Amino acid sequence: MSITLTTDFGSTDHFVGAMKGVILGIAPRARIVDIAHGIAPFDVNEAAFTIAQAWRWFPEGTIHVVVVDPGVGTARRPILVEAGGQRFIGPDNGVFTLVYDACPHKVRAIGNPRLMLKEVSRTFHGRDVFAPAAAHLARGVAPGRFGKIVHDFVRSAGIKPVMTKKNRWMGKVLKVDRFGNLITNFHIDEFGGVRTRTFEMLAGSGIIRRLAGTYAESGAGEVTAIVGSSGFLEISVNQGSAAERLGCGAGAELELETS
Amino acid sequence: MSITLTTDFGSTDHFVGAMKGVILGIAPRARIVDIAHGIAPFDVNEAAFTIAQAWRWFPEGTIHVVVVDPGVGTARRPILVEAGGQRFIGPDNGVFTLVYDACPHKVRAIGNPRLMLKEVSRTFHGRDVFAPAAAHLARGVAPGRFGKIVHDFVRSAGIKPVMTKKNRWMGKVLKVDRFGNLITNFHIDEFGGVRTRTFEMLAGSGIIRRLAGTYAESGAGEVTAIVGSSGFLEISVNQGSAAERLGCGAGAELELETS
Amino acid sequence: MSITLTTDFGSTDHFVGAMKGVILGIAPRARIVDIAHGIAPFDVNEAAFTIAQAWRWFPEGTIHVVVVDPGVGTARRPILVEAGGQRFIGPDNGVFTLVYDACPHKVRAIGNPRLMLKEVSRTFHGRDVFAPAAAHLARGVAPGRFGKIVHDFVRSAGIKPVMTKKNRWMGKVLKVDRFGNLITNFHIDEFGGVRTRTFEMLAGSGIIRRLAGTYAESGAGEVTAIVGSSGFLEISVNQGSAAERLGCGAGAELELETS
Repeated sequence: MSITLTTDFGSTDHFVGAMKGVILGIAPRARIVDIAHGIAPFDVNEAAFTIAQAWRWFPEGTIHVVVVDPGVGTARRPILVEAGGQRFIGPDNGVFTLVYDACPHKVRAIGNPRLMLKEVSRTFHGRDVFAPAAAHLARGVAPGRFGKIVHDFVRSAGIKPVMTKKNRWMGKVLKVDRFGNLITNFHIDEFGGVRTRTFEMLAGSGIIRRLAGTYAESGAGEVTAIVGSSGFLEISVNQGSAAERLGCGAGAELELETS
Repeated sequence: MSITLTTDFGSTDHFVGAMKGVILGIAPRARIVDIAHGIAPFDVNEAAFTIAQAWRWFPEGTIHVVVVDPGVGTARRPILVEAGGQRFIGPDNGVFTLVYDACPHKVRAIGNPRLMLKEVSRTFHGRDVFAPAAAHLARGVAPGRFGKIVHDFVRSAGIKPVMTKKNRWMGKVLKVDRFGNLITNFHIDEFGGVRTRTFEMLAGSGIIRRLAGTYAESGAGEVTAIVGSSGFLEISVNQGSAAERLGCGAGAELELETS
Repeated sequence: MSITLTTDFGSTDHFVGAMKGVILGIAPRARIVDIAHGIAPFDVNEAAFTIAQAWRWFPEGTIHVVVVDPGVGTARRPILVEAGGQRFIGPDNGVFTLVYDACPHKVRAIGNPRLMLKEVSRTFHGRDVFAPAAAHLARGVAPGRFGKIVHDFVRSAGIKPVMTKKNRWMGKVLKVDRFGNLITNFHIDEFGGVRTRTFEMLAGSGIIRRLAGTYAESGAGEVTAIVGSSGFLEISVNQGSAAERLGCGAGAELELETS
């Protein structure tokens, strides 16, 4: 049984190590898989995007732990989500918004103290609540034992574009990837495929009129929009950084017009 | 049997990969667990803090390899430490100081060339000495076969605060974590719990008079001290960076007065 | 069976996670080993160096996946290399140049669509082609089923120094490691060992005349050349950064004269 980890803990601190120790102490045979620990601190939308792009490639039954948790120590609930044949554990702050959008889901508030560490700190639920929950789940504890089903779970605003008039949307940059590509919140499924007659996207200092099929297809240095491997439109510069070129970063506003 | 790795090797070089290859070559069934590879280069105190916060969460028998090794190639000894039911392998330069402080321990100088690679380079003992030692240990080789018990092992100075007069200490910033929190070397166990009548800490350009229970409890932007999940006092700014705010980094001096 | 991963995907994005999910979906018992994900974006030479220094430490049969792939979506082929009792999977762009140099090798163009994901995107072959190939190989699919042997595979120019006259070579900095050491492309095997009568290397703003045995042997702050653990000459400053000191980075030209 695999337990994946996606966090904003970075690679310098002991946080990830402590979580792995707790998991192995409870479920010695679990397989721990690092997805990404470099999510920008407290960036719930980036975490939502990252787990959304990764989870569906894992086999049935996989348990995904996501810890990007600005509200740790407050009243925000820990949750356990069942969706798409897999399980998700993390804070109820919107990190699973794109999972909810993608498939039917059942959400429980984790409340059973027997499935947490004996002492739960107010600053590190990754170690004290989420890691033990994942480990117990991996050992076969039934989801129902963690807590009751809830319906008022949190969705992150701002992951979906807003239609402002016919064929026109306001969206934004969800994140800048390692290569400087701007991942937008425009998903191809909602824009009728790539074969639009006209396509015009305003991003920072640029207007993009070209929707390309591959990074390498465009000329060196050319700015294009592309349907990324994630299904979201990305703005890229062939072998360069679109973020630098257009002066845009995570959260920047975008305008899209198609017909 | 798990072997954890904590190093200053980063995520760009081949060092971590070579160590993993050596381990799997000797102990194909060992489970390798990355704790952190982003320790600041040569920062023995940061490594000491990181492994101290992580190890106790792992199950009995776990083997922890720590490679932050500015003295590689000199006379500093490789050591094997048994403490708290777990095992620790690394250079004798103080990286295990907080493990020594936490529980009874037995330290051996690793000297048996049969438990190292055949050729030991002068620049990469992580691969040539520490990884093979961990792997042989995981396969069941008894600690006594690695080398003799030593008593003159190195403790890192500067991990503990110094009392300057009654209720007054000089301490320092052990490290800045991913979120900009300043981890100090003041441990709550040595300061009689959090309910002091007065509390005053001088840190960089600020004086902190508030000891809070959770990151989120204080107002946005407020600077507070908090008992971190590690038991060490941390200086934090709610959803901001205390390091930036106070102009402090690893090694900065702190003054604490309580009563 | 171990599958190692070496990429330029960093630790912020979902790319590595998606690859791991695909591998576990096909080969649930495969062991996934992260070598390094911080290769500089698109730097084929750095990837070639990193995998070359890591692979030989792994046990026979290990499968190494290297994804540094500026040409994804173009005509560059995916390949499967058998060499030194191990297997290598990645783009045919020169990332395996130093493996070819090190031992006899058999190279196949991966062409069998049944051993890829059903839909192959034009932007993410790590997930759609390389990860499934590695997983199928781990499950025992014979190399011959992936595709035909090819002889016109790509070698990266610029990994080997050029002799300009007797005892004189032009080389370059392959990469700067985590500690600021400059890894050069001068391999000790091609320079008759370290006991040369004279040794003079021009690097950036400096001339290095000393070839030392260990990092710590030289005086603090002294610039020396050293035979790194990789066999390649490295330029280092004792407990400092040679890159900063000499103003040199990856790709910088070097001149070496020995006798």
